[in-house]
Amino acid sequence: MLGIEKIDHICIAVKDLESARKVWEPFLGKSAPDHAYRHDPEAIDVARYYVGEVGYELMASTREGSDVDRFIKKRGEGVMLLSFKVPDTVEAMGKLREAGFQLLDKTPRIWEKSRYAFLNPAFMNGVLVEVID
Amino acid sequence: MLGIEKIDHICIAVKDLESARKVWEPFLGKSAPDHAYRHDPEAIDVARYYVGEVGYELMASTREGSDVDRFIKKRGEGVMLLSFKVPDTVEAMGKLREAGFQLLDKTPRIWEKSRYAFLNPAFMNGVLVEVID
Repeated sequence: MLGIEKIDHICIAVKDLESARKVWEPFLGKSAPDHAYRHDPEAIDVARYYVGEVGYELMASTREGSDVDRFIKKRGEGVMLLSFKVPDTVEAMGKLREAGFQLLDKTPRIWEKSRYAFLNPAFMNGVLVEVID
Repeated sequence: MLGIEKIDHICIAVKDLESARKVWEPFLGKSAPDHAYRHDPEAIDVARYYVGEVGYELMASTREGSDVDRFIKKRGEGVMLLSFKVPDTVEAMGKLREAGFQLLDKTPRIWEKSRYAFLNPAFMNGVLVEVID
């Protein structure tokens, strides 16, 4: 329906990015992130590693009360988000609405050249799902 | 270090497999699981869908008190496991031990032609990690 191509990335909510890197880099066989960035609108500091075709992201909060901070306080560290690659986010959002899925966003969010939107995890078996193009 | 090739599969713990299928099949654009199986040693009933190179698994408990049942009772439905493909599970287990990682298994578990082992999520930022060959 949406033309999902792959799992684009997986986000792991961590308390401390530096100590998480010390766990995951040896595990993944990396000496540094493949990409590192800070995303102020979501108050996150991110280390991304490519594992096959999937971006594996360690994500720490940069501000008390951010989504990541609240996730960790409520559930502890762990997998917070699964992001699915679609050809066109706006088209996917339309199809999702038509099919009765509950989106958290009315319009796509934008980050660099990608547009993305979240689905309500309450209707996705507890999984916070993102579609991204 | 371990020669991780890709994310092999992701497991979502769900209460009811049939109703979860009705959510995820339209989302993933599938009319049926690519593979469906029951794994009695772990008391799970599984619907697997390939999303790119990754197996996306919906997993329901077949017995009260199983790992999946306890996971859901404690944390609710959601992402329960990330499995990473390695060339050789036994070799990976040796390297993980040497590097100070905490394995939950002394010897690999076996399922069909694969050997797999779990790492302790308490030392992996709350992520239940599996290595599989």
